[in-house]
Amino acid sequence: MKFLFKNAKILKDAYADIFDGEVLVEDGKITYVGKAENLRADAVKDCGGNLLMPSFANAHAHSAMTLFRGVADDLPLKTWLFDRIFPLEDKLTEEDVYWGNMLAAAEYARGGVTAVADMYFYNDVIVDTLYKAGFALALCSGANDIGGGTEQALCRIETAYNKYKGDRLKYFIGLHAEYTCSDALLEGVADLAAKYGAPTYIHCSETLEEVGECTVRRNLTPVEYLHKIGFFDYGGMIAHGTYLDKGDIALLKDKNVCVVSNPSSNLKLASGVAPVYSLLKNGVKVALGTDGAASNNKLSMFREMYLLSCLQKERMKDAAAVGAEISLDAAGKTGWQALGMNGGEIAVGKDADLVLIDLSAPSMRPLSDIKKSLVYAADTSAVLLTMAKGKILYENGEYHIGESVETVYKNAEKCIKRLLKEANG
Amino acid sequence: MKFLFKNAKILKDAYADIFDGEVLVEDGKITYVGKAENLRADAVKDCGGNLLMPSFANAHAHSAMTLFRGVADDLPLKTWLFDRIFPLEDKLTEEDVYWGNMLAAAEYARGGVTAVADMYFYNDVIVDTLYKAGFALALCSGANDIGGGTEQALCRIETAYNKYKGDRLKYFIGLHAEYTCSDALLEGVADLAAKYGAPTYIHCSETLEEVGECTVRRNLTPVEYLHKIGFFDYGGMIAHGTYLDKGDIALLKDKNVCVVSNPSSNLKLASGVAPVYSLLKNGVKVALGTDGAASNNKLSMFREMYLLSCLQKERMKDAAAVGAEISLDAAGKTGWQALGMNGGEIAVGKDADLVLIDLSAPSMRPLSDIKKSLVYAADTSAVLLTMAKGKILYENGEYHIGESVETVYKNAEKCIKRLLKEANG
Repeated sequence: MKFLFKNAKILKDAYADIFDGEVLVEDGKITYVGKAENLRADAVKDCGGNLLMPSFANAHAHSAMTLFRGVADDLPLKTWLFDRIFPLEDKLTEEDVYWGNMLAAAEYARGGVTAVADMYFYNDVIVDTLYKAGFALALCSGANDIGGGTEQALCRIETAYNKYKGDRLKYFIGLHAEYTCSDALLEGVADLAAKYGAPTYIHCSETLEEVGECTVRRNLTPVEYLHKIGFFDYGGMIAHGTYLDKGDIALLKDKNVCVVSNPSSNLKLASGVAPVYSLLKNGVKVALGTDGAASNNKLSMFREMYLLSCLQKERMKDAAAVGAEISLDAAGKTGWQALGMNGGEIAVGKDADLVLIDLSAPSMRPLSDIKKSLVYAADTSAVLLTMAKGKILYENGEYHIGESVETVYKNAEKCIKRLLKEANG
Repeated sequence: MKFLFKNAKILKDAYADIFDGEVLVEDGKITYVGKAENLRADAVKDCGGNLLMPSFANAHAHSAMTLFRGVADDLPLKTWLFDRIFPLEDKLTEEDVYWGNMLAAAEYARGGVTAVADMYFYNDVIVDTLYKAGFALALCSGANDIGGGTEQALCRIETAYNKYKGDRLKYFIGLHAEYTCSDALLEGVADLAAKYGAPTYIHCSETLEEVGECTVRRNLTPVEYLHKIGFFDYGGMIAHGTYLDKGDIALLKDKNVCVVSNPSSNLKLASGVAPVYSLLKNGVKVALGTDGAASNNKLSMFREMYLLSCLQKERMKDAAAVGAEISLDAAGKTGWQALGMNGGEIAVGKDADLVLIDLSAPSMRPLSDIKKSLVYAADTSAVLLTMAKGKILYENGEYHIGESVETVYKNAEKCIKRLLKEANG
């Protein structure tokens, strides 16, 4: 199956110049990028001069939390978590996660996302929804042992690591967070990472309270402690990294740990603004994630890119800080690489994970600098088509995610209504 | 001409409950709101259960600066202003402003905005574009006398005040800013406001430098000084208000001055985050504006609403601060009232300035709390239809703004290309 995008403006990656040309996709892979006439294909998409670019990687998500959108807003952090989210999650069934993920699949498709690092319950269901629909999927262990079961948790993580392997499917050995796990579990997971030479994934330094409490308890920041027990010895990712000091940053750089920033979640929950400028300045890789829709409330990488750049300008009191290209890269190539997936750029041999961007939206005009407009002026309304490894997930209002959106919406409503009733009952 | 919206969910204003019903529009005014069958009309829009709500008022804009989108990003504030924007504005012709405004008209229509407070050059052209297209238009004097001409400026302001009067058309007596005007001009404008009993409009306390420099020079903050000379004696609006202390806030409250916050512009230019929480707590009205597309770079009230709430949460370190309804109100009813226009709510007798919001976008689902989703999850992709006083400006990809968008885009490109050449030449 050959699919040809013709008459496109092409952005190969965040730092490349845009040029006019064609992209040929064969069996899910990009096989030609350039300016050519008379390319033959089974299907042809005339891009009409619109922009073809790599799709986005959402490097930190709890996708099924789309179910909780709009049920816990404008509340203090602790009320949000303990009185709303935890009681709902306590009642969550596999079916809920199924429909929550399908709703997320629709939102990702609509917003140009085709790779996701997902940390949530029921891994098989996440595979059966996001992966089956065509997304590149990195499952992330969110294990904790607050209620005990350290050995069982370690066993489950190792089993999952060996189970979820495949083309565009992987599993990150990891944990929920330092403050929800015993030393035995934290060290056990570090040992697992060493056993397999595997990168790890963990929520880390999201709030000032978390960092303060760990520092009091251990006389080490969360990053210092994790570094000390070898958690980062094979690289990996930390989600959030809102509060990182110079020492933390040096350790992350030393171990090649990527920070997944979640600016909209950190902002709405009043957690803070991550030191992204300093991270980048010191050579730490920065990817981007949306976090869950219960906290942010939108799975849009456009919003995350915008905030990544603009919040740093305010934080550094420098309107030149963290330019648009850096955010495009964080949402693109760097995110894809951190996930260990073969996308994030338009190049021969890469998976055909692509987005067609509407340049006829008023907010994209004039075309003086399309890359700046992508970060500072675009939103999901700009997405005309989203393709995941050659499969069209969204095009002009039509979704191809395995279920009709009407079915998804109907079931998502049913699930959250039941959950609210059970959680409050 | 009777136009009927049927089968809608209706949000009358930010604080009202949403209900199912119909809205009848006759000759540009709302004549029925409620649940009724068998209403007859010349044209019927079946809303299919989507949300009908008041359109937005953009209470601070330099609309024609859409031309400069993407030409001055990621630069230090002074480079942005002195090396990029001022040289371009120096070459600006009436034709440039015409096409810049038409591009803004398209963007407003796409984004559900139908009332604009515009401060820019060539008032007649602003009327000939935005007002003629159907927008409620409040022109705002942006006069200064840096290069002299105090008397002429006063004369022009008074002439304009008496000239631009009409249904949905008005002119705010005012000035660019304290730091760009002589005492004679500032006091002269205060006298004009007194002569006509008119509210005023001015950029005020946008940056810390501005406030500091004024305080050193006058031993008064900009607000204290303007209050002292009677500039606020008949109320009005200040744009930005990023740096306001307790005394300033008390004076603004005392004189019933509305603060037009521009969170995205202040953020991207690293100017700061306004004390919106304190303003509201102390009874000062807060409206919302986009500022110009050269600084923010998108004329979207969805983005401004999102930022108004979320930046305050971070500023106050309280995830409960400035809830979604407050931002909806600032972008709606409060903005419309500050502009002195008859819109911003769905009620009999109000102008039919309405937006139809697509509730079938994935990011709007589930429908647990539509108001929260409007602020925290919606973007321009949610707008299905925008109506200004009974006239449809945008519907499902079609624009009705007086020029075809293709013509607008072509001419906007031409204008900015010429301007860049002249400014750099």
